[in-house]
Amino acid sequence: MTDRPTNKKKILNDPVYGFITLRHDILHDLIDHPWFQRLRRISQLGLSHLVYPGAVHNRFHHALGAMHLMQSAVEEIRQKGHVITDKEALGVSIAILLHDIGHGPFSHALEHSIVGNVNHEDISTFMMNRLNEEFHGELNTAIEIFNNHYPKKFLHELVSSQLDMDRMDYLRRDSFYSGVAEGQISSERIIKMLNVAGDKLVVEEKGIYSVEKFIVARRLMYWQVYLHKTVLSAEYMLMNILKRAKWLAGQGASLFASPALHLFLSNNLSKEDFLSNPDILDQFAQLDDYDILGAIKVWQHHEDKVLSLLCQKLLSRELFKIELRKDPFSERDIASELDKVTKHLNLSNDEAQYFVISEHIDNRAYSTAASAIMIRFKDGTLKDAASASDHLNLSALSQPVTKHFLCSPFLGN
Amino acid sequence: MTDRPTNKKKILNDPVYGFITLRHDILHDLIDHPWFQRLRRISQLGLSHLVYPGAVHNRFHHALGAMHLMQSAVEEIRQKGHVITDKEALGVSIAILLHDIGHGPFSHALEHSIVGNVNHEDISTFMMNRLNEEFHGELNTAIEIFNNHYPKKFLHELVSSQLDMDRMDYLRRDSFYSGVAEGQISSERIIKMLNVAGDKLVVEEKGIYSVEKFIVARRLMYWQVYLHKTVLSAEYMLMNILKRAKWLAGQGASLFASPALHLFLSNNLSKEDFLSNPDILDQFAQLDDYDILGAIKVWQHHEDKVLSLLCQKLLSRELFKIELRKDPFSERDIASELDKVTKHLNLSNDEAQYFVISEHIDNRAYSTAASAIMIRFKDGTLKDAASASDHLNLSALSQPVTKHFLCSPFLGN
Amino acid sequence: MTDRPTNKKKILNDPVYGFITLRHDILHDLIDHPWFQRLRRISQLGLSHLVYPGAVHNRFHHALGAMHLMQSAVEEIRQKGHVITDKEALGVSIAILLHDIGHGPFSHALEHSIVGNVNHEDISTFMMNRLNEEFHGELNTAIEIFNNHYPKKFLHELVSSQLDMDRMDYLRRDSFYSGVAEGQISSERIIKMLNVAGDKLVVEEKGIYSVEKFIVARRLMYWQVYLHKTVLSAEYMLMNILKRAKWLAGQGASLFASPALHLFLSNNLSKEDFLSNPDILDQFAQLDDYDILGAIKVWQHHEDKVLSLLCQKLLSRELFKIELRKDPFSERDIASELDKVTKHLNLSNDEAQYFVISEHIDNRAYSTAASAIMIRFKDGTLKDAASASDHLNLSALSQPVTKHFLCSPFLGN
Amino acid sequence: MTDRPTNKKKILNDPVYGFITLRHDILHDLIDHPWFQRLRRISQLGLSHLVYPGAVHNRFHHALGAMHLMQSAVEEIRQKGHVITDKEALGVSIAILLHDIGHGPFSHALEHSIVGNVNHEDISTFMMNRLNEEFHGELNTAIEIFNNHYPKKFLHELVSSQLDMDRMDYLRRDSFYSGVAEGQISSERIIKMLNVAGDKLVVEEKGIYSVEKFIVARRLMYWQVYLHKTVLSAEYMLMNILKRAKWLAGQGASLFASPALHLFLSNNLSKEDFLSNPDILDQFAQLDDYDILGAIKVWQHHEDKVLSLLCQKLLSRELFKIELRKDPFSERDIASELDKVTKHLNLSNDEAQYFVISEHIDNRAYSTAASAIMIRFKDGTLKDAASASDHLNLSALSQPVTKHFLCSPFLGN
Repeated sequence: MTDRPTNKKKILNDPVYGFITLRHDILHDLIDHPWFQRLRRISQLGLSHLVYPGAVHNRFHHALGAMHLMQSAVEEIRQKGHVITDKEALGVSIAILLHDIGHGPFSHALEHSIVGNVNHEDISTFMMNRLNEEFHGELNTAIEIFNNHYPKKFLHELVSSQLDMDRMDYLRRDSFYSGVAEGQISSERIIKMLNVAGDKLVVEEKGIYSVEKFIVARRLMYWQVYLHKTVLSAEYMLMNILKRAKWLAGQGASLFASPALHLFLSNNLSKEDFLSNPDILDQFAQLDDYDILGAIKVWQHHEDKVLSLLCQKLLSRELFKIELRKDPFSERDIASELDKVTKHLNLSNDEAQYFVISEHIDNRAYSTAASAIMIRFKDGTLKDAASASDHLNLSALSQPVTKHFLCSPFLGN
Repeated sequence: MTDRPTNKKKILNDPVYGFITLRHDILHDLIDHPWFQRLRRISQLGLSHLVYPGAVHNRFHHALGAMHLMQSAVEEIRQKGHVITDKEALGVSIAILLHDIGHGPFSHALEHSIVGNVNHEDISTFMMNRLNEEFHGELNTAIEIFNNHYPKKFLHELVSSQLDMDRMDYLRRDSFYSGVAEGQISSERIIKMLNVAGDKLVVEEKGIYSVEKFIVARRLMYWQVYLHKTVLSAEYMLMNILKRAKWLAGQGASLFASPALHLFLSNNLSKEDFLSNPDILDQFAQLDDYDILGAIKVWQHHEDKVLSLLCQKLLSRELFKIELRKDPFSERDIASELDKVTKHLNLSNDEAQYFVISEHIDNRAYSTAASAIMIRFKDGTLKDAASASDHLNLSALSQPVTKHFLCSPFLGN
Repeated sequence: MTDRPTNKKKILNDPVYGFITLRHDILHDLIDHPWFQRLRRISQLGLSHLVYPGAVHNRFHHALGAMHLMQSAVEEIRQKGHVITDKEALGVSIAILLHDIGHGPFSHALEHSIVGNVNHEDISTFMMNRLNEEFHGELNTAIEIFNNHYPKKFLHELVSSQLDMDRMDYLRRDSFYSGVAEGQISSERIIKMLNVAGDKLVVEEKGIYSVEKFIVARRLMYWQVYLHKTVLSAEYMLMNILKRAKWLAGQGASLFASPALHLFLSNNLSKEDFLSNPDILDQFAQLDDYDILGAIKVWQHHEDKVLSLLCQKLLSRELFKIELRKDPFSERDIASELDKVTKHLNLSNDEAQYFVISEHIDNRAYSTAASAIMIRFKDGTLKDAASASDHLNLSALSQPVTKHFLCSPFLGN
Repeated sequence: MTDRPTNKKKILNDPVYGFITLRHDILHDLIDHPWFQRLRRISQLGLSHLVYPGAVHNRFHHALGAMHLMQSAVEEIRQKGHVITDKEALGVSIAILLHDIGHGPFSHALEHSIVGNVNHEDISTFMMNRLNEEFHGELNTAIEIFNNHYPKKFLHELVSSQLDMDRMDYLRRDSFYSGVAEGQISSERIIKMLNVAGDKLVVEEKGIYSVEKFIVARRLMYWQVYLHKTVLSAEYMLMNILKRAKWLAGQGASLFASPALHLFLSNNLSKEDFLSNPDILDQFAQLDDYDILGAIKVWQHHEDKVLSLLCQKLLSRELFKIELRKDPFSERDIASELDKVTKHLNLSNDEAQYFVISEHIDNRAYSTAASAIMIRFKDGTLKDAASASDHLNLSALSQPVTKHFLCSPFLGN
């Protein structure tokens, strides 16, 4: 790090909060690290920008925003008389800053298309551990908090719970960039209502309406943005592209790809591989949206018809049609679509599978399990938000909602 | 109207929507009318500004804003192929512009303290009829729509229903001015989702989340702003001031008051009086917040101790303490407060009544009665929003919530 | 202050900044004082709301906002290594909180119509001194800073200079409420650029564009809002109303007025009177917009034709026509207007004077005098913003601009 | 276009304007065209996001926004009584929609690094002509307007002039996404002030302050965002990377690159080549930010030290230090930097050239040439904004400002 510029910029502009201030050198050093800079090239909302053209923000900015909110939350909780040492304040800030460090290209959807059974939280942990070595143990507290091994449990809740700074930032940021005004939440007010009771993060009584509003806004963002049906169609097309490319790579086909992408296409790497071969993590850290989309652009002209067709359609935004409903689609519905595909596109039945997607998604606006949002009343009693609300039926919102969908280019024809 | 300025300004700045355009001369003439100008002197949120200092906007601006939204709604519905004639467009714009023309000083709370059994909708009707004479019948359509006598029923719904332009504007405007960001609704999006089905105003299927958000935001504004406990305390103090002043006037006491306020303090005027004596309406049209507050300032020094104390406390923001709860307060609770008041303030029991308030309020976020918000699905079927929503339990929100409260200067002491 | 409520609310909603926090009990006590509460009833922008209907905010909220910015500025300057003791921090906050405490009804325009040679800064000083007695000397530091008698001169500059927290708040607030988006300034960014060099408030080099923008925005607000020609017309009408009422009072005419207004209409009180008779300050502290407008409403029906006509026209927004130009109007122009007034309104020449206004206004966007805004370059040199800017010609903006205007109901007819 | 989806989405969310409506099918078809979709992958502000992390918006969204403003401007001008036929309205909308269609990867900076003497306006014209063939001549009017061959000259001015819809959108959008609030302009207000006088686009007198504000905001955005010194450093590093890669390609070195990028690296293609070989345009249309950044990521590991070092530094945000000043740097200054580079990085003098950049930039906030912004006074006279403004010295702003800069990794060491 010898030739890193010395006059560090301490204030960053943010259209969402105005300014973000970096209060410790190590935060600055972590942000400058190539692994963190990589997050600039990973979009926050995957392909949602195909429906909401403004939603082109990335995980780099989200991580900074979440850290900014964390600094406010720490200050607020301290002002209410609870002790958070400087070391803990820095630890919890680092923990939230790095919470997505291991995120792969595009959104969660692609997670298992590139590496098999490894999720991004695992990789975040691998990366934090490696960074901790580079930073000579300065991330110890952050890692303990991240993994919920730190004694003060509420610090982990600020990083990961139903009311954590991650959600708080992404809801505001995603609604800001997408222009879906209804998703706006008042992060500032909720933070002002935070408190700690017996090592548990709680919300003060008068914040109950803001919590309800937060839950309703989150649900709205799920169905209107994150799981918007056009976005679903695009993301499943993207998954199928990767699936086909991986299959072709297995067949020994030649595929344009960056070295890092080539590695993951040609091998089925598991968590064990990550642990036994440190080089794999380095390769993973080279991967971002640019590898994927850069390859897809070239694959449009690949000789494999399945691959080239899928790539052309995705890039021209000729997305599969999609139908959502409460009940699953029948075998017959699916067969009928496969039939149309084989006929119209002149493909084999195996090939046609890539063009017909039958899946389901589910979402629960609020979870009443161990992680319930606790409301603290003036008399000191604590209640789960679901029972504390006198009118909004949060228990209704805590039921999971499942939707089944069918995608295909010829649906409804 | 001979010396009214001729170069009419057609565009008004509005911090909420940017600009408001007046598209017809008669709208301009109505706005210039002293009766409409009076609305500049009637605050939109009564005494809410004692809690939310920014909330000092008035009914004048709200009426303009609602008219602005009406113009958008008319345009949207026309673009979807439904006929709204120019005459109807103007009529419905006038109807919404004048919907609050008969509003008395301060908020609804004061309504029955000044005139007995006459509510502000009645007075609005009286005023519209009088204006219609002045404007040679040009308000005929507006009045028919306002009173729901016009054949195209959806026009009335735009003026008065659970999704009317009145609510749409006041929610946005009140949340804007109060700074309660959670009350924000996307009026623009809801209007884009409006349609007409069989003469009924409906919302298209994909607007369902916005409708839910609208209902939740409205409920939040009710409990957090309109019925905020400190606001309740202040408004009931204001009512008691007027009650005492009226009682004193009945006793022949001398009271500083504008002539118009003097008239209403000294007489119990009923709807019949308004109908039989046109001058009473003219006097009413002189009354606004300035008469009330101007008098209260002087009454601080009145020799009647009850009146002067109440006025001093209101103006110095030494509001009665207040407790809200689900169950009614007992006779004993009330007697105990009365007791403290008589003792500490050295008042008779009759006088003490003005210092102890036991009341209840209720609110229903959504009503499933005849006026339900109807959602139109792509296949053309219509459903009440309460049953159309797949997760948010609108039926829970349609239960009325009642809160009882007790106010007194010495509560809890 | 024994029965002041004990559970003090510490956080206030503000649509401009989100939240305003009160960090000391004395700030809370000062805000609760009836003299400060009076500012709720004094509009920030006088009659500008006749052109910008949203601009109905008051001096109460402005004072709170300026105090909020002061807290940020103090924090910023401290973080840059300059010492501001807690006592000084509180003093400078109180100074800005109370900087307008002596403001009379409506805007500056009315200042000399009510009391003769006393300006509102004088009265603010009188009031602060009196409050200091009530608060047992706790305002000593604040008063020294306010009067620029405190050793650390930059503290006074934060209260009163070309870049003080007063201007910073009023520009943002006025542009926010009026909806004149071009007036927006980034108070947050300017504050982040503040620093102290040799006891002088300075702006760091990279803040130069923000300073320029601030000056241009301020100029725009002057000509577009504060000195908007329709606003000028209305404010001069208001002055003439007061002038006429005072003249009538001198003639022994009976005039509806609150006791406080009556006192000032019937007497020509000077600074000396304020100093010799403390009761006059108490009476002044009773005066606000409500006294003035409440009276004007009644005066519409006064038997003096000049008074009643002026009042009717102002309240019905039938404002005098107005023409602005660079050169003064000739005696002949004025005589011609007087002539029309006497003829059309059937008035004597003396009476007609109230209907013809020939005046001038001037404004200087930036002043290069002693109070220049100093820019500090990285190498430590200081330069006046006017010479530091490499392109925007701030010296051009430092020329005073004078505009002459003529107002009359029949102008151009 | 047979399998293009039939249920066209007509309304797009935009965080800047709320909603963008597509009013003609051909607009929709053009947006769906792969050449237009390509603009999703070209960032609006090149590498400015390295300083302003929020500024990640792309040319796709900008083009839609400019079209949205164009629709408002057309409506406004029509309402003022000037004829714009439906055909012209559509033509001018298409012209603005496609004005950047030929833009290459990243910002203007890269323009001549990829193709030699061809600027993006040329390529836009080539592409529009090709699209016109595909769309059977439906773009005729748009192309005439774009090239200023259409009789009604003001239509071209709406597309390209000092007050065109391009600038109007990019200023608002860039300031929105970067969070540089001072760049905000009121596009809505300026458009409301537009008019036509004798076939020339003019601004009405009362819009003069908004025009001034627009010019000042634009200048601020130039120096604070577009030409921010850190951004300059990054963009010149990017140019040098491309230059080196092209040189290496000329030497026959193997370079990871997409086929399209490979073509432009290995050949010096001129305007003539574009004209004589249509395939080159098709290849160009494959190029976007993903090709460039995707290659740079791989080139970090290239065996050529110059290339790999530059790529590593750019991606890790270890940007060259930079100094800006009014006077040019001397040969000696430059030699000294080259010397440090050869020594510290162990490079030859030729290689070191890629690490030392001596250049200049200039910008003029306002141009008084033929394209002056004309203000129309109430009496019908027209004046250049520079002389119409009574205080802001626009002539000062019309002087070009030149800044020289020197970039190198060891500057100041």
